[in-house]
Amino acid sequence: MTHPWHPIPGGVTAPEGFLAAGITAGLKASGRPDLSLLLAPEGAVCAGTFTTSLVRAACVDLCAERLQAAGGRARAVLTNSGQANACTGDRGLIDSVRATRAVAERLGLAEQEVLICSTGVIGVPIPMDTLLAGLDPLVAALSPEGGGAAATAILTTDLVEKQISLEAILGGQRVRIGGMAKGSGMIHPNMATMLGTLSCDAGVPAEVWQAMVRRAVDRSFNAITVDGDTSTNDTFLAFAAGAPLNPEHFDALEAGLTAVSQHLARAIARDGEGATCLIEVQVEGAATEADARAMARTVCGSSLVKCAIHGRDPNWGRIVAAAGRAGAPFDPEAVALWLGGHQLMQAGQPLPFDRPAASAYMKERAAGAYLSGDTVAIRLVVGSGPGHGRAWGCDLSDQYVRINADYTT
Amino acid sequence: MTHPWHPIPGGVTAPEGFLAAGITAGLKASGRPDLSLLLAPEGAVCAGTFTTSLVRAACVDLCAERLQAAGGRARAVLTNSGQANACTGDRGLIDSVRATRAVAERLGLAEQEVLICSTGVIGVPIPMDTLLAGLDPLVAALSPEGGGAAATAILTTDLVEKQISLEAILGGQRVRIGGMAKGSGMIHPNMATMLGTLSCDAGVPAEVWQAMVRRAVDRSFNAITVDGDTSTNDTFLAFAAGAPLNPEHFDALEAGLTAVSQHLARAIARDGEGATCLIEVQVEGAATEADARAMARTVCGSSLVKCAIHGRDPNWGRIVAAAGRAGAPFDPEAVALWLGGHQLMQAGQPLPFDRPAASAYMKERAAGAYLSGDTVAIRLVVGSGPGHGRAWGCDLSDQYVRINADYTT
Repeated sequence: MTHPWHPIPGGVTAPEGFLAAGITAGLKASGRPDLSLLLAPEGAVCAGTFTTSLVRAACVDLCAERLQAAGGRARAVLTNSGQANACTGDRGLIDSVRATRAVAERLGLAEQEVLICSTGVIGVPIPMDTLLAGLDPLVAALSPEGGGAAATAILTTDLVEKQISLEAILGGQRVRIGGMAKGSGMIHPNMATMLGTLSCDAGVPAEVWQAMVRRAVDRSFNAITVDGDTSTNDTFLAFAAGAPLNPEHFDALEAGLTAVSQHLARAIARDGEGATCLIEVQVEGAATEADARAMARTVCGSSLVKCAIHGRDPNWGRIVAAAGRAGAPFDPEAVALWLGGHQLMQAGQPLPFDRPAASAYMKERAAGAYLSGDTVAIRLVVGSGPGHGRAWGCDLSDQYVRINADYTT
Repeated sequence: MTHPWHPIPGGVTAPEGFLAAGITAGLKASGRPDLSLLLAPEGAVCAGTFTTSLVRAACVDLCAERLQAAGGRARAVLTNSGQANACTGDRGLIDSVRATRAVAERLGLAEQEVLICSTGVIGVPIPMDTLLAGLDPLVAALSPEGGGAAATAILTTDLVEKQISLEAILGGQRVRIGGMAKGSGMIHPNMATMLGTLSCDAGVPAEVWQAMVRRAVDRSFNAITVDGDTSTNDTFLAFAAGAPLNPEHFDALEAGLTAVSQHLARAIARDGEGATCLIEVQVEGAATEADARAMARTVCGSSLVKCAIHGRDPNWGRIVAAAGRAGAPFDPEAVALWLGGHQLMQAGQPLPFDRPAASAYMKERAAGAYLSGDTVAIRLVVGSGPGHGRAWGCDLSDQYVRINADYTT
């Protein structure tokens, strides 16, 4: 990292003044934690990015409308896991409003200051009596050490919780950023991730914060894919509240914001349903950053590339074939390709390479530690343009199919 | 079928004057047939549609350039299976030209009248000595009964051959159309299928034929998907040669052309790697035919929908979610959805339905006969517009992953 940020513990409650909680309310049949609450300090600004799907859950409509009406201000977000509350008809919005009203009453906030996220099975309404009965214990559990519990209670098919917090001293001011996310299947975000929440204890004007968050999301959550299926519920909410930060440090703050977002995004890709490794694709030499990211994401999303990596098979033709259909212009005669340290193409021509060694490289990655030693790195140079970008995905395994063939029944 | 066409045997050699052959030249390690040749009668016009990928095989460049230069005229197409001859550097084009020249010499044609298609592993060049040694026996085997052998020799991971032929009497003139295709993985054609060849013994002006073929391809090969991966080698070539057909029958001819193309396209989707059933999605009430087809194809291509159907799990929320991200406008409040005979949504609201019966419907389909009783039908009405369209795909199984994890090594 070429910025002043270093990791600290605490997740979303690492920043000053943020409280969180996560409990088991009984929404999930499994008995796992399923209700989470984050409370931001007074005066917090909140930037939200949401799914671009035409079919979106009632809770997404509610968040987008409230943030719009309040000029990017909000104080709390409730998250229920187990039911997505999407495609639930008129009842969906009624339930979302009821839930936020009940939270607002308990926190002494206006209803409009409370947001809600839902995740789980589409078409299934929230068991409202169960949710409402969970609110008193949830609010009672709010704590400045609640980040971990909140991060656990938003998970569905995820295998691990996803949280991070960073700290930097910017012009003598201590600034902390925390984040949590969930997501494992139906991951191909477009303007947001499945569910992500970020907290920051620096004061930033709402419009500056919104622009920073949008760029950070483009370079993180919008650059991952697990299965190409954009969710109906994708939501990323970023809160900031605290002493005003000197504008000369906005670039440094954005670097931290991007680092937190990329960590969470990579963690979602790595925890892709059935995945055994993370795939990182770096594209260089494209005309624009957007072109580079489009190519990187198309390679990450190719079923054939994902299967080849699952089989630790250096079938590199599939990588170039995927880049070719990304819709971004490049000269196939200029292509150079690396798999880890193994160069496979130069100037559009295949190079002889050590196939067993390339396969061994991928096998080692599979055996590596979660999110550190388990990344299969692909580098694709497509010309001499200034555009470069990265995307992250995961391999496609038999296990993904089994998980998704038997989800609701 | 609401047109005058009825099925007859013969495949691409059913139409008058067409000869074909398929032999084992030794290009495939498996010892299966791997070299195929189709010879059209003198004066044949030929319409070609090709992959839109920026990374395309040398043989595709050669076909496109020769058809362009000759104003849509060609006489023969050689197909080798085993090596895709894509991403093989300068050698790719040199080998393609050598192969067509050698065929032209043996048939007494100009080199420019011969086309070539290749399919198999990307990045692997054709063993040219083996291919050239196979040409004498291949030409010797040319016959008016060679359609079946030719259809077999173009296959790679396909489980079954794909061919059809139809006949109609148009204004007293007997007209026959035959077709063959291959494709099982890397199937998400954009302007063409993996490999398809069609023959017709009616005379049609080249520009009329080209326009007809383009429309038929949009309604067939461009409406299927197996894994979202557009190939580097997608090629569809349609030959027509014979007594000039009265223009008043062009619509009827196009109906036959579309029927043959849709049969072959459905057969490719059904034979998708690891598939256990065909998925047919019909979208109605969209603004345009292109919008309807885009939504239908997005639903067919959704990994989550494909997994749910593999598990015979009526998880219908995934169908609506996929339609929502297709990029075509519609009103979610107007959506109605059917799975077979089971209605699941009306006016954007979920309906109570018999879940075990819906699951049983899908289970029956899996047990049905290939290409007749094994279609899971999804009907999605998205409004009251005039646009309707269909797309075809297949379920995503553990087997797909196994096939593609271990392809080259």
